[in-house]
Amino acid sequence: MGPHPAVAEVRRAVREALADLGSGSLVLVACSGGADSLALAAALGFVAPRAGLRAGLLTVDHGLQEGSAAQARTVATLATAPAPRPARPAHIAAPFARDTARAASSAPGPHDLDPGAPDASGTGGNLAPGLGLDFAEVLTVTVGAGGGPEAAAREARYAALGEACERLGAAAVLLGHTRDDQAETVLLGLARGSGLRSLSGMSGTAGRYRRPLLDLPRRTTVAACQALGLRPWDDPHNRDLRYTRVRVRTAVLPLLERELGPGVAEALARTADLARADADALDGWASKAYADCALSDIPEAVTLAVPALEALPEAVRTRVLRRAALRAGSPSSALTAGHVRAVDRLITAWHGQKAVDLPGGLCALRRYGTLVFQS
Amino acid sequence: MGPHPAVAEVRRAVREALADLGSGSLVLVACSGGADSLALAAALGFVAPRAGLRAGLLTVDHGLQEGSAAQARTVATLATAPAPRPARPAHIAAPFARDTARAASSAPGPHDLDPGAPDASGTGGNLAPGLGLDFAEVLTVTVGAGGGPEAAAREARYAALGEACERLGAAAVLLGHTRDDQAETVLLGLARGSGLRSLSGMSGTAGRYRRPLLDLPRRTTVAACQALGLRPWDDPHNRDLRYTRVRVRTAVLPLLERELGPGVAEALARTADLARADADALDGWASKAYADCALSDIPEAVTLAVPALEALPEAVRTRVLRRAALRAGSPSSALTAGHVRAVDRLITAWHGQKAVDLPGGLCALRRYGTLVFQS
Repeated sequence: MGPHPAVAEVRRAVREALADLGSGSLVLVACSGGADSLALAAALGFVAPRAGLRAGLLTVDHGLQEGSAAQARTVATLATAPAPRPARPAHIAAPFARDTARAASSAPGPHDLDPGAPDASGTGGNLAPGLGLDFAEVLTVTVGAGGGPEAAAREARYAALGEACERLGAAAVLLGHTRDDQAETVLLGLARGSGLRSLSGMSGTAGRYRRPLLDLPRRTTVAACQALGLRPWDDPHNRDLRYTRVRVRTAVLPLLERELGPGVAEALARTADLARADADALDGWASKAYADCALSDIPEAVTLAVPALEALPEAVRTRVLRRAALRAGSPSSALTAGHVRAVDRLITAWHGQKAVDLPGGLCALRRYGTLVFQS
Repeated sequence: MGPHPAVAEVRRAVREALADLGSGSLVLVACSGGADSLALAAALGFVAPRAGLRAGLLTVDHGLQEGSAAQARTVATLATAPAPRPARPAHIAAPFARDTARAASSAPGPHDLDPGAPDASGTGGNLAPGLGLDFAEVLTVTVGAGGGPEAAAREARYAALGEACERLGAAAVLLGHTRDDQAETVLLGLARGSGLRSLSGMSGTAGRYRRPLLDLPRRTTVAACQALGLRPWDDPHNRDLRYTRVRVRTAVLPLLERELGPGVAEALARTADLARADADALDGWASKAYADCALSDIPEAVTLAVPALEALPEAVRTRVLRRAALRAGSPSSALTAGHVRAVDRLITAWHGQKAVDLPGGLCALRRYGTLVFQS
């Protein structure tokens, strides 16, 4: 009898995401203990030894909730509890951990990560295997205050993951984002109304980060955990309605599925893929066009040729203008599409108007056949 | 004392939308009697004589509801009832109507278009002026059955408007779509997940059609009607929850505004504008790239050069492939992004695979350095 279909699906996704890695490479998985990353970590524990890869788990203690350190330790302990696995091929190096506490791989693996669940004994169980990974690390981070609590936690988390990836020499770090996360991201981008890039959601591959589950719905990771006897951690933050993303997940997407049809999350994820390819193509074009238009690229006096700008379609021209403003020192967080449109009117609706003020104490002005960005 | 701010806003939008038209041009407005098109028609009645333009109203009787003919006649009658207006400049031709019944411009204008409203007397009133347009026509159409009731009604309506525009020699036909309609259109496109073009919503100008209210919220047209003493018709179809658009309007958008912030409709409309410009630029690029890649453009054997395709970014390459499949005779309604992706793998993931079947009894196959679309 083969594995449960959900388990097979997650494993297949992980196998495909790692197909290009050379034998002996180290793959890390970022795991909070939630259903998505837990199913992902379990799949990595299964796939890695069969693909000749080494595998480790990283779990981040954000220090934001009571008991977060214990929760992180529980995930790390589960990670290295043995899973049924084939004999390790001889050319694979033994699991290693340098200057970090290594979770004992012989520790009994409590399979229940939800301390609030009625049958959580904390003593481990024998229904489930562990995740069977070679090692695990708890990364303790300090979350700053900038840009809201979600953004600050994300920034601290990625900094720690990036550092660990470097230090351990990993070829890839797997992240557990699913198609539902992607749909939420697209909706959040849509609500900002800031265009194609904000509809592009998350990429399946971004540097060392890989998101093997981006085409799978969350229900598959939940089903996979259940089939494996793993009880995921239910992060209270995921139910905190003060977070916009939580409201999107619990209220907006279910309503969209009800009113527009059950394929909405899939359609949003498809939109993200198409938008990302479109944004990449237009950014590439704009990059070339900027080089063609720029008479001077010195930040103090970025100067573009008006006739070259006039020959561009609006979507490319506005991207070139944005690029020029950023190059001249306008801060990207403050430079809106409205600013760019006002500068664009110096090209498309020229009637001798005065300079356009831009964030960062800059202005854009048309002078003879050129557009100058200066302070 | 100037006009109510909402009235002023609608008039300003109409004035700007007509600024390029030569004196004496004829402008038509399509009016159902609902708040949006009623406010639009009233603004046209005010702006046109002051801008040296002739103005007429078209109202479509779809014949789908009890009393629709009477409702259409009421709108036409209101249209030509006099509004306070300045003396007509001498160079403006008198209102005309050729082979169509002309609503008597001296008829008392019942300002109440909602027969279900408690104070609808049907005898007209003296609170409100008419719309002050030069003439009005009722266009009676027969709605077919293809593509669902909304699509069929829309098709019949636009055919009749286009015919009337031609026959009357109009320079422009105004449509009353607001920013809220635009937001609904973007959400419906998003739910299809078919990419940038479906997020582009409606264009402010498309051929002879112009949508002056596309940047105004629906509440402005409602307020303008109220300020003018016009009581719009409340189309029962607009409350029929069998229509997806009605559910988007009544359930989805209000929830999004509540959960994501009050600027959602505006953000969606902004997304549409950006998406339209992006789609135009990419389509232009793809058009040029298709010409560069096509070794043969005969429908029976559309042939593209693989090396030229390989040099294109994904977003442009997939558009070129779609274009080639359509040119070869694949029906656009059946050709999905999935089909195009499968053809694309003949370029990006070539390992000698067999021909890819396409709708319309076609296939795409790679042969030496070419990609051939054939039946």
